Amino acid sequence: MSAAFAYVSDAQGGGDADGWRQRLGAALGEAIDLRAWPDIGDAQDIAIALAWKPPPGALARLPNLRLIVSTGMGVDHLLVDPALPDVPIVRVIDPGLVGQMAEYAIYWTLHHHRDMEAYGTQQRQRRWHEVPFTDTATRRVGVMGLGEIGADTASKIAGLGFATAGWSRSPRAIDGIECFSGAAGLTAFLQRTDILIDVLPMTPQTAGMLDARAFTLLPRGAFFINMARGGHVVDDDLIAALDSGHLAGAALDVFHAEPLPADHPFWTHPKIKVTPHIAGPTNPRTAAESVAQNVRRLRAGAALVNLIDRNAGY
Amino acid sequence: MSAAFAYVSDAQGGGDADGWRQRLGAALGEAIDLRAWPDIGDAQDIAIALAWKPPPGALARLPNLRLIVSTGMGVDHLLVDPALPDVPIVRVIDPGLVGQMAEYAIYWTLHHHRDMEAYGTQQRQRRWHEVPFTDTATRRVGVMGLGEIGADTASKIAGLGFATAGWSRSPRAIDGIECFSGAAGLTAFLQRTDILIDVLPMTPQTAGMLDARAFTLLPRGAFFINMARGGHVVDDDLIAALDSGHLAGAALDVFHAEPLPADHPFWTHPKIKVTPHIAGPTNPRTAAESVAQNVRRLRAGAALVNLIDRNAGY
Repeated sequence: MSAAFAYVSDAQGGGDADGWRQRLGAALGEAIDLRAWPDIGDAQDIAIALAWKPPPGALARLPNLRLIVSTGMGVDHLLVDPALPDVPIVRVIDPGLVGQMAEYAIYWTLHHHRDMEAYGTQQRQRRWHEVPFTDTATRRVGVMGLGEIGADTASKIAGLGFATAGWSRSPRAIDGIECFSGAAGLTAFLQRTDILIDVLPMTPQTAGMLDARAFTLLPRGAFFINMARGGHVVDDDLIAALDSGHLAGAALDVFHAEPLPADHPFWTHPKIKVTPHIAGPTNPRTAAESVAQNVRRLRAGAALVNLIDRNAGY
Repeated sequence: MSAAFAYVSDAQGGGDADGWRQRLGAALGEAIDLRAWPDIGDAQDIAIALAWKPPPGALARLPNLRLIVSTGMGVDHLLVDPALPDVPIVRVIDPGLVGQMAEYAIYWTLHHHRDMEAYGTQQRQRRWHEVPFTDTATRRVGVMGLGEIGADTASKIAGLGFATAGWSRSPRAIDGIECFSGAAGLTAFLQRTDILIDVLPMTPQTAGMLDARAFTLLPRGAFFINMARGGHVVDDDLIAALDSGHLAGAALDVFHAEPLPADHPFWTHPKIKVTPHIAGPTNPRTAAESVAQNVRRLRAGAALVNLIDRNAGY
C-alpha cells in the first residue's frame, strides 16, 4: 500500500516540508517518508498530501491519493482547482496559528495607535517631536469575525486596555468585548470602530463586503487591518477612502490574487502596508497532532475529523 | 494665598497643559487655574508646579512655589537643575503609564519577531516572499528591571506565548516568568535573551551597564529595546555590536542627551529605530488622582505621599 506523504505548495509559499517531516513523524512516533513538491519521486507512492495553494492539477497527478490535508485555515485555495481529486479533505487545527494571527493584529493596532508611522518619518528628518498621545481606553478596536481567531485577538487587545468590540453574523458573547451581530448590528459596529480588524471567513456573504459604504461608516481617521481574505475588499473603494483622507491607513496581508501582482497599486500606496500572507503561518510544531489524528484514523479505517464539506466551502 | 498651578516643561516636550487642567480639576472637584510655561502671568501666583524636564532655572523664578510634582516616573530630569528650589518634590503615580510602556515593548518585540523590517523592505521592492517563521515559544524575551512596569511588560509578553525571563538586582518571583537576579544571574540572563528590554531605573549602578561585554553575551541576532534611560548604554559599544552583525537591531526611546542631537549617529543608523521619549507618556486621565491626593494634603497641612528623597535620587 502507498504510504508516502507529499507536501504540495505553490512555489512562492514558504512551505516547511522539513518541519512537517520532523513534527508529524514525532506525533506519529515513526520516521515518515514526506516528499516536497515537485520532487516527489514516484507519484504512485503518495497516499496523503499536505497542501497549501497547490498548483492546479498537481493533486490530480497522485493516482493513489487517499487524503488531502489543508495546512491553512480556509480551503478556498484547494477548491479553486478544477481537477481537485475526489478524496476526503480535512483541515488542520493549529492552536499556534491562533496566537500568531493575534500577534499580527496587535502589531498593526499598536503601529497605528502609537503613531509609529509618524515617528518613522520624523526619524528620517532627524526630528524630535512628541505626537499628541491618544488614551488607550478611548481607542476603539473592532474585530469582524468572532470564531476562534477573532475571539482570541479581541480578548488580547482588550487586555491591553483598548475599547474593544466584535461583530459576527450570529450573536456571540465574549467577556470584556462589546458584541454586535447581523446586518442590523453592522452599521453601529463600524461607526464606533477606529481600528477595524477583518478575520471573517470567505463566503458568498462576505465577498466584497468591505466597500465604499462600509469604509464611509468608519470614523474619519480609522485604520484597517485585513488578515482574512482579500476577496472581502473592493480594492478601488479602499484606495478611494485612503486617498480622500477618510481612512488613515491599512495593513493588508491578503489579496484578491496572491502573490499580489507587481503592478497592483497597493504595493506603492503611501498609506498601505503589504505583507505576503504571513499573518498566520501554520506551525508544524503546534499543528502536527491534528494531522496525526487523521492519519491514524485513515489507517485504522475510522471516521475522519475536521472534514471539509466541499459544497459548503468550509 | 497663591493658588495657581503651572505646567513647566521643555519647549520640545509634548506637554498636555489642557489635559492636566481638565483632569486635575475634575479630580479636585473645582475649576483650577493652571498656566502653561512660559505664559504663566504673574509668577507670584504659582503655588504648585507640574514639571517635566523644566528649563534649568525656571522653577527658581516662582517665589511662592510650595510643591513640585514630577510628571515622569524618574526625577533625574529635575535634579539636574542647579537652581532647583528647596520645596518638596513628589512623583506622579500613573497606572496608565505602566500599560503604555508595555505597549511600546510589545510593539518592538513583534516588529523583530515577525520580521516586519524585512517585509517593509520587500514591499518597497514589490517582492512577495515569506520569511521563515520563528516559533513564538522558542523566541526568548528578557526584561531587565522587574518593578511595576517590568513585571507588567513581562507578563503581557509571556501571555503572547514568548519564552520570557526577567532580571532584577534583588530576587523576584513572577508567575510564568523565569527570574534571574544580581550580578551572578546577569550573565545567564543575557546569554538566553533574544530580545532584551531595558526598564531599569537610572542609578550609579545601572549607568553604562549595557556595554560591549553585555552586548557580546546576548546571542547573535538579538534585538535591543531601551525604554528606560539612555545613560544605561555605552552608545559606541551598541553601534559596534550592530555594525559587526552581532545584534540585529535596536529600538531606542531614551538617550544620554534629549532631544537626541541632530548629528548623533543613532538618527541615521540603518539598524536603529529612534523615538522621542514617548514610550510612557504620563496620561492626565489616569494620573490626575495621584496629583490631587497631594494637592489636598498640601492644602490641609497633612504629610505628602510619594515624596522624593533628593539625595537618593528617587
